[in-house]
Amino acid sequence: MTDYHSENEPETMQDDFFDQLHPADAADHLENLPLEEQVVMVRGLPLEDAAESIAEMDSHDRIPLMTQLPPKLAADILTLMSPDDAADTVAELEPDIRKAIFRELDQEDAAEIKSLLMYDPDSAGGVMNTEILVLDENLTADQAITVIRSQVEDSEIPYYAYMVDQYRHLKGVLSLRDIMISPGGKKLKELLVEQNLIAVPFDTDKEEVAKLIARYNFLALPVVDHGQRILGTVTVDDVIDIIQEEASEDMQQMVGAGGDETIDSPWGYSLKMRMPWLFVNLLNSAVSAWVVHLFEGSIEQMAILAVLMPIVANQAGNTGQQSLAVMIRQLAMERFDRKKVWIAVAREAKIGLVNGLIIGLATFFGIILVFQRPGLAAVMALALLFDMLLGAIAGASIPLILKELGRDPAQASSIFLTTLTDSMGFFVFLGMAGVFLL
Amino acid sequence: MTDYHSENEPETMQDDFFDQLHPADAADHLENLPLEEQVVMVRGLPLEDAAESIAEMDSHDRIPLMTQLPPKLAADILTLMSPDDAADTVAELEPDIRKAIFRELDQEDAAEIKSLLMYDPDSAGGVMNTEILVLDENLTADQAITVIRSQVEDSEIPYYAYMVDQYRHLKGVLSLRDIMISPGGKKLKELLVEQNLIAVPFDTDKEEVAKLIARYNFLALPVVDHGQRILGTVTVDDVIDIIQEEASEDMQQMVGAGGDETIDSPWGYSLKMRMPWLFVNLLNSAVSAWVVHLFEGSIEQMAILAVLMPIVANQAGNTGQQSLAVMIRQLAMERFDRKKVWIAVAREAKIGLVNGLIIGLATFFGIILVFQRPGLAAVMALALLFDMLLGAIAGASIPLILKELGRDPAQASSIFLTTLTDSMGFFVFLGMAGVFLL
Repeated sequence: MTDYHSENEPETMQDDFFDQLHPADAADHLENLPLEEQVVMVRGLPLEDAAESIAEMDSHDRIPLMTQLPPKLAADILTLMSPDDAADTVAELEPDIRKAIFRELDQEDAAEIKSLLMYDPDSAGGVMNTEILVLDENLTADQAITVIRSQVEDSEIPYYAYMVDQYRHLKGVLSLRDIMISPGGKKLKELLVEQNLIAVPFDTDKEEVAKLIARYNFLALPVVDHGQRILGTVTVDDVIDIIQEEASEDMQQMVGAGGDETIDSPWGYSLKMRMPWLFVNLLNSAVSAWVVHLFEGSIEQMAILAVLMPIVANQAGNTGQQSLAVMIRQLAMERFDRKKVWIAVAREAKIGLVNGLIIGLATFFGIILVFQRPGLAAVMALALLFDMLLGAIAGASIPLILKELGRDPAQASSIFLTTLTDSMGFFVFLGMAGVFLL
Repeated sequence: MTDYHSENEPETMQDDFFDQLHPADAADHLENLPLEEQVVMVRGLPLEDAAESIAEMDSHDRIPLMTQLPPKLAADILTLMSPDDAADTVAELEPDIRKAIFRELDQEDAAEIKSLLMYDPDSAGGVMNTEILVLDENLTADQAITVIRSQVEDSEIPYYAYMVDQYRHLKGVLSLRDIMISPGGKKLKELLVEQNLIAVPFDTDKEEVAKLIARYNFLALPVVDHGQRILGTVTVDDVIDIIQEEASEDMQQMVGAGGDETIDSPWGYSLKMRMPWLFVNLLNSAVSAWVVHLFEGSIEQMAILAVLMPIVANQAGNTGQQSLAVMIRQLAMERFDRKKVWIAVAREAKIGLVNGLIIGLATFFGIILVFQRPGLAAVMALALLFDMLLGAIAGASIPLILKELGRDPAQASSIFLTTLTDSMGFFVFLGMAGVFLL
């Protein structure tokens, strides 16, 4: 499948099989081979194809492969990757392997990769592409087209050209379309009149960049240094990856799995990521168990309490998880608006309260029907109402509290929530039972 | 903020305030006003601005506003939206309002909107843009540039031009850049040689379209009818929305909240979406409670069992949720590969088994330390091992089973999982305790 849509123009490949593959598919194929065969295959490929395929590989597979290749070959492959992909690859190599490869790189490439390595990988600088089309704002449209025709093959996604002054200060952005349809003799700077330039500093969080691009339907956003000089761009295809990674991170970290795990991760990696949180969960469960332990006497007298108490905890946990999910998605999709999100906690409380009333009432009548014990039914209904309300408030607040503390809003949030709804649910239910029923 | 990056070129606006706003920001501003003020504001805006802002509004806000506007004004606004946005808006209006507006639309616009309404909103046809740049494949590059210069203002995101024969059969795709840098006298069809065309039929699931665009870094994907005639394109900015919606749906439906809820939804809507699943959860909890009820005798003799049993259920639930989260994300991000995902269940089982062994062992020694009861410790450890293994297998399988049944893989999956880990955890723990300890 030749791919004329992507930023990577298809190349004629020597290898008959790879000839038909998009780099993303070639990467899949490589990942399914044993490491030794991967090395053999890569050594047989044209360098350009090897570079494109390896850039698309999952890092769990890419790093061992790059480590196995002779440093000279690895260096040649890195040179042909886009600089941001090359920097991402180098960043994960062992220091001695990295050193060996750097010795084989030419000075200019090495310097570019090293400069990219200095950016925080979670910042705009860490995800930007540096192969951009930069034009002097004093060129005319016709001159610009000549320059574009000579340069365009080099640039990764040149939908936009960036206008700069002599000091490389970013002055404006034009799409190739804008330049194409403008009168040939007109200077580029005249096309920029009334443009409100949007650019982000290199240290902007990549998730903020993704939100900007998603909100305004940009195809790319320029990245500048603190002197407003252009450094690169973050493109929409990178943003899709950022959004997908963020969604996986949130969903997986919420329950204490690794944010970057996939079903392709080595299982030992998943084990290592999950186990600490299972121990946290165990400690938290022990707290809830201790609460139950306080009421062992009540349970001995009235074992039905042990039958009903998981229902309270379970309903409140579920109610809280609903609020939690909505709040985590809010934080993922929109820019953080402190006032708005804390007001949303009140909204969740209201929903939790009404759901608690309805479920509480249904349970009240259910218990009367089954056990004919109105006192027990009332205690159960009140405990449900209290714990579901608490769950909703806690579920909505936990991500906000984590965020205010500078932590990831999703991290283990479901575990913390369950601890609270379990222990408080047991406490209130068993406590009220002790007071009113025994 | 004038936005030169987006597909919508900035327009000179009459209103001083809106003048500075991107449509996405104007929409936010509108949403924060009471409905009557929204109507007043929209009546004062230039039609073009009104159309762009309303198209960006949340549907919970857009529908009441469109319903309040005079049908003639609503029709004029719809005419200026892109046809897919207009169709999305009309789709949600009450039938009588819709009829009144259709009476005011000119025949051609009404026909276009009606034809778009016939596509499943979750299909490629339902999300495609119909304002595309279509060129006869027999034009030369120079002729094409002339046509583009005359047409380009009309098209929503013309990065690509679509080449067709006389019957509008899709023959190939060229970027404006391809046309721009090719020799002027060359025919477009000659530029298409060796192109492997990728297009999707209109009835392809929109999530499949999103996966294709994300995987191959496309900016747009053409949509065709079953006769290979071009109908429109799905663009990358739509794909970002699809991916975000899908991520929210998965995370929220997993715990029984509404897939399209946000903190901006009316609270009654959230209540209505969540309550049925809380009742399902209540029934499921009742099943677990019934399991405990079977062992009331054991608990009366040994209340410590009631103290420890929530730990078993809680650990297994958490283990299962970790597997669940990873599997749901797998299904969201990659094309469905039946063999690969079922093999992944074995991977999750292995992780669950090892985590179960380690947590089981830690708990074994913990209970001996605290209670000096090796028998109880052994029963607890075995129950943990069993239930955590079960949780991992169930967490990984439930989304696959739902998918194989043609359901949404996330829907209430966490609720089903908890039912299983709770009831089986209680059963095995209390059952073994009854046999070995009493």
